[in-house]
Parts: sequence; C-alpha cells; structure tokens
Amino acid sequence: MISVEQHLDRVLAAVGPAAPRRTPLAGAHGCVLAEDVRAVVPVPPFDNSAMDGFAVRAADVRAATTGTPVRLAVVADLPAGSGERPEVRPGTAVRIMTGAPVPPGADAVVPVEDTDVPPGPHPLPATVEVRRAVPPGTHVRRAGDDVARGAVVLRAGTPLRARDLSTAASAGHGELLVHPPVRVGVLSTGSELVAPGTPLAHGQIPDSNAVLVAGMVHESGGVPVLLGSVDDDPDALRGLLAARLGEVDAVVTTGGVSAGAYDVVKEVLAPLGDVAFDKVAMQPGKPQGFGTLRDGGRPVPLFALPGNPVSVFVSFQVFVHPALTRMRALVAGGARPTVAAVAAQGWRCPAGRRQYIPVVVETSDAPDGSSGTVRVRPAAAGGSGSHLVASLALADALAVVGDDVEEVHEGDAVRVMMVP
Amino acid sequence: MISVEQHLDRVLAAVGPAAPRRTPLAGAHGCVLAEDVRAVVPVPPFDNSAMDGFAVRAADVRAATTGTPVRLAVVADLPAGSGERPEVRPGTAVRIMTGAPVPPGADAVVPVEDTDVPPGPHPLPATVEVRRAVPPGTHVRRAGDDVARGAVVLRAGTPLRARDLSTAASAGHGELLVHPPVRVGVLSTGSELVAPGTPLAHGQIPDSNAVLVAGMVHESGGVPVLLGSVDDDPDALRGLLAARLGEVDAVVTTGGVSAGAYDVVKEVLAPLGDVAFDKVAMQPGKPQGFGTLRDGGRPVPLFALPGNPVSVFVSFQVFVHPALTRMRALVAGGARPTVAAVAAQGWRCPAGRRQYIPVVVETSDAPDGSSGTVRVRPAAAGGSGSHLVASLALADALAVVGDDVEEVHEGDAVRVMMVP
Repeated sequence: MISVEQHLDRVLAAVGPAAPRRTPLAGAHGCVLAEDVRAVVPVPPFDNSAMDGFAVRAADVRAATTGTPVRLAVVADLPAGSGERPEVRPGTAVRIMTGAPVPPGADAVVPVEDTDVPPGPHPLPATVEVRRAVPPGTHVRRAGDDVARGAVVLRAGTPLRARDLSTAASAGHGELLVHPPVRVGVLSTGSELVAPGTPLAHGQIPDSNAVLVAGMVHESGGVPVLLGSVDDDPDALRGLLAARLGEVDAVVTTGGVSAGAYDVVKEVLAPLGDVAFDKVAMQPGKPQGFGTLRDGGRPVPLFALPGNPVSVFVSFQVFVHPALTRMRALVAGGARPTVAAVAAQGWRCPAGRRQYIPVVVETSDAPDGSSGTVRVRPAAAGGSGSHLVASLALADALAVVGDDVEEVHEGDAVRVMMVP
Repeated sequence: MISVEQHLDRVLAAVGPAAPRRTPLAGAHGCVLAEDVRAVVPVPPFDNSAMDGFAVRAADVRAATTGTPVRLAVVADLPAGSGERPEVRPGTAVRIMTGAPVPPGADAVVPVEDTDVPPGPHPLPATVEVRRAVPPGTHVRRAGDDVARGAVVLRAGTPLRARDLSTAASAGHGELLVHPPVRVGVLSTGSELVAPGTPLAHGQIPDSNAVLVAGMVHESGGVPVLLGSVDDDPDALRGLLAARLGEVDAVVTTGGVSAGAYDVVKEVLAPLGDVAFDKVAMQPGKPQGFGTLRDGGRPVPLFALPGNPVSVFVSFQVFVHPALTRMRALVAGGARPTVAAVAAQGWRCPAGRRQYIPVVVETSDAPDGSSGTVRVRPAAAGGSGSHLVASLALADALAVVGDDVEEVHEGDAVRVMMVP
C-alpha cells in the first residue's frame, strides 16, 4: 500500500506542460501564455479622434462661444477607417468620426454637439459654426498613449481571459504562443456497461463514468475526447488504444484495475512496463493505475481509475486534476484547495486509509454577519460506499479524514476539499 | 439620460429563460435542469457483488477459518455484465466479479483474498477453499440501496456539473430536460476594423471586440457564434442580420451607436421600432442600444454596445451578463457580486455618471492571518479612458463609484465588482 502523496508525486513527476504552440486568439481562451507579449503596434496606432465632430486648428476657434461662434469651411470628411490625409489649413475644418485619424494641420477636435451641425447621419455640410473654444490636444488620443510599441502587455504564465485576448489583438497580435488545450481521452471499461438511457438487461448498468470523466475534464480546463466503452476484452482495449492514442494528450480509463479475473485494463497495460498498478491508502480509490504510454515517441500519460462512480470522482479530483493543472502550465495549479470545517454529525472511517467522503456543507453565519463556521455532514445517510452515486449529486464538497482516524465525532475539526 | 438600473430593468424585463429541450447528457453540462429528475431504475438495478470473489451460501462457510477452511465446488463463473443466473446449491460456489449480479441461492460473497485462489486473470478453478466465515449479506449491494426507483435525484434549477450527469445516467436517464445553451451572435461594426494580426493601413485598427465579446459570452456560460465584422454600411449590416439571425438566441453588436454620421447600428436598428438607443448615466458605456429583433415569431434580444474596448467590457458585465444568467435560467443569477474595498490612491470621476473603472486589487492580510482590507487603485496610470485596452489586461476588478462623486480620495470606501 502506498500513500496518496506517493502516488500523486509519481503522477506529477511524469507530466509536464504541453509544448507551446502558436494559436489563433479565438482558440486561446483559457490557455496559459508561454511567453511575454509585447505590443507590435502602438495603441492607438495613430493620433485619432475621441469624439464625433470636426477636426480644427485650435488657434482658429480660440475665441468661439455660443454668442460669438466661428464659422469654418468644411473641406473633407473622415469616417473611421479612412486612410485619407486631407490638410486642415487656417479657416477650415474636416468632419471626423470617433477613431478616425486626426488629419495634418489639425490639433484638436470640436464635438458635433458644440457646433450648428445636428448629430447623426447627415450629408457633409459646406461650413460649420463652432460654438466653443478647444485648447490644442482636446479630444485627440495620441498614438501610443495607451501602449507604446514594444511594451509588455501580457506576461508569460497568464491564463488568458477574454479581456487579455482583446488586449493582445489591440497590440497587433492575431495569434499567441500558448500551452494548448489538453485533450483527454475518456474510456470506460466493463462488459456490464450500456449507454445511458438504454433499457437494462439483467446484469447491465448504465455507463455513468464516461459522462462523469468528460465533464470533470471540462471542469479542469481540458478537452474531453470520448473514446467510448469497451467490454472486458483485452484485444478490444488494445485495439482501441492503438487506433486512437494519436488523438489525445492523456487518457483516463475507468474500471478493470482490481483483483478480478477479467480486469482488462490491468491485464493489457501492466505488461507494457511503464504502467504501474498499486493499492493507495485511501477510501474510496484504493486500486490505482498510472503510467505513460507511447504514441511513437510522444509520451501519453494514462490514469487507470477504479470503476465505481464515487471512486472515479475522488480519484480524478485527487490525482488527475493536479496533473491537468500542470499540463496546462498553470503556475498556481495543483491540488484542490481545502478549508477548515467542523463535523455536524459523526461517521465511521476506515483504519489505515485516508477517507474522502462526500459531504453536505452547512454554513452558519457568525452573529456579526461575517461567514462563520463551516459545518459538514455525510451526503449519503447510509455510509461512504464507493458505489453511492446519489451522494455525488447531493454533496457540496469532500471531507478529508486522516488514515489514523477510525471515527469522526460530532464537533471534530475536519478538512474539506472544495470540488466542482 | 437614464440610470444604469433603468436600462438593466428594461433588459431583464425583455429576456427570459430559454425554452427547455431534451438534451443528451453529454451536451447538458453547465445547463440548468428544467424539471426534477427521478430514478427510472433503482440504483443499483439488481443485487450485486461489491468484491471480486465467490458467491456462497453463508451457512456453508459459517465455520471457515484459515486453519479450518471449507472447500466448495465452483459451478459457474459470473463476470460483470453476465445475464446468467446459475443457482448456488449447498456445498457450491460461483466465481463472481465486482458488479456482477448475485446468483440465486447465494447470500454472501467471499473476497478472492480470503480463498486459495490467486487474484487476477486465471482459469475457473474446479473448487475453492474458503478461509473466512461471511455473515449473510456480506459484500452484497442490494438493488435500490443507493437510490429507490422513483426517488428524486436532481432538482429543477440545478446547473448541471459532471457528477450530476453521472447520477442522472446511473438513475436511468440518457437525456434531460434542460434550458439549452444560449447562443450569442457576436458582430463588430466599423470600417476601421481589420482582423487581429493583419498589417494596419493608415486609419485601421485591429478588431479586438469580437474576441473580447466571444470570450465573455463563454465566461458567462453562453456559446459565442461569430457573425464577423461589417463596415459602416447599413445594407451590409441589414443583410448579415437577416441571413444569420436564425442561428442565435441573442446578438451583441459593438460600435456604431453614438452621434456619428456613419453610426450604422443606430441607423439600421432604430427604425425597427423595438430597439431603443439611450444615454445611460455611466462611464464608460454611455451610449447603449437594446431591443428585441424577430426571427419569424421568435424574439431575439439585441445588445448594441459602444465600440471602445473598456466600454464593451463594462457594458457586457453590467447588462449582458445578467441577461445571459436569466436566459440560462440560473435562479441565483443576476449582477456580478461586489465587495467592499478602500482606495489605495485617489482618482477623478465624472459628475452625474456612475463610474466603472478597471482597478488593481492589493489585499493586505490582517495581523491574525485572516484576509484583511481589499485596497484598489486604477489599473491605468493615466486615467479611465474607454479606449485604454492595456488597463483591461492589468485589472483585477472594476471599482464602482456613485454618480454623486467627483473625486475618490485615498482611504475612501469604494465598492468593487468581481469580474472574470
């Protein structure tokens, strides 16, 4: 029997960040940046207008007021996107839209609201009456004011949010060097499994693990690749892995790792050498397999989880989630966080194994209104069996109880792992 | 000028939960359940073995110990998935795998470890030596022990996590009635826009808004549908909307809603009657359009946001996010949460408009180790301009400052909106 930490250490030693790849912005959301990103264009790229109005020479309208307006000849029109550079000479103005480049000669913009021209879509007027003075620079955004060319706008290690991608686009980038999404093959084993919703013959159960693992992969920031389900048939498993290993960066199997006469995962993978099957001192999740397959020269980590749903859930959160976090190159990544809690009722624990038990959280607010003690009770009234799928839906978290504890009593302090 | 609340109220009054649809489990992750889900099969569906071992009559092995083992004839083999029902008569046993149905006559399972048979894949032995007594019921999971047929396993209103889908599968469901994912059309307008990464001619800028809005839709639990970018050409905008409105449940446009001569969104949509353009008392985000288009009889809400990146970000978080939350049928949904904070430095605010300013959060831990005061300062050194894309990447949150405040001083209390 090995400890949870021994198994996790072995897993984490065998996985590393996915090799960086240039990825279009639209595909980089959620990925971790692999290099600092500098602005390859200044932002904004040229002096431009902050308002819809008229580009003028400030000196021309220095004396303008509502009572003593200044009339200028409108010599050109500059919608946004225009590449024209009409010159603004003394006594003239150019109609200009927000974002359009400020034309040569002009040094300020008069908003349309401070003129005799109505806002909105109208033909270009021959003249404009300016009713307010504008000091030089008014409503002009200078090239590079927001970001100078060459400035770092995003740091390596950042998991990219929508707004980071927006900043990268403005700074001139159409793609970024990121650690690409981790594709995780999801493979259920067991001759008893049928697709969810299928009528059950005697001895059959629905394959609830594929949808569970696929969903957890998604919740951990990976991309699930459904490889399907195989009977307890070594050739079928071997064939499926050979055919589809090239599509994925990691594989999670469920079932077939225990002491049975038909435990195909163990039977097929154990002889491949680099996959080890162990008993881990935890409940649920005692039988665990982990190792590295080879797709040509490319290493593909494989997690062989037990088959019971609660075992799958716990094993994934404790071992697969931290591995995916590392493969995604998240620097803050690792184990799911735990918080301090108090047992609202007692329950039994297995001697010599760390218990991960689905619990319901009852938070009692402190008298001052701040959040108070977190109290937890087992989600399943009946116990902590690894097959108790109802407890999965009911639970808010997993209580983690040390291997030296045989019984948790009401009022005892326990740690609680926050899980999606 | 209308208030933020007036605009948000109008938006929320016009949107409702997406019509429920039966959806395969694999596509229901993140969707909200539209009805209570009951078990249509008991869980487990039949009495089954919790161990790999031998199904026996407990009375036969009552006296078994390592020193005085009991030998039984092995009359059949029951791998998981077997539909066979071999009878266990006195003096006999059936080899059984975890999850296989307990055969008639047997009332307990002896783990393989408590026999003379080695674990793992071996031919069926003719006899087995049992070395430990097992009381009736040992290692037998009874049909319905976890969930009785007809019991509610999931409640309407639940946003479905991986483990909820697993529970639904085990309870006999292949699809669920859920509020389906909200598909949001993303449409940038502006003749100045070119695809991110494209070399810029004079007057052009990258379209950073499409990737920003698409990413925010994703972060708010929707599905972005990229409708592309159109020039400031009313016919192009009209044509694109007519061609693609059927693909989406809502539309977010950026740009073209202000006072310019080429503001096409306003020009095209305002005459359609049900789309209103207003000035909202906020900075950034003052010009806002919202209304409902019709795809045949189907209402499609349309958000016409301003074009500057910070305006787009703030408008989305303040108006579009709560609307998507309602369309997803999340009962706890609504506005992004805010927390109390203190200004680490002062900044200017616009009179008469509520300010949403990107800020960096500095959390100083209290002496007792608990998390202390949240301190914030503007992310952009230069100010709060709506075009300051660099501040989007730098910011941790948005400070929200009342319209009666003209200056925030160091040490002032401010509210901070948590945003992705």
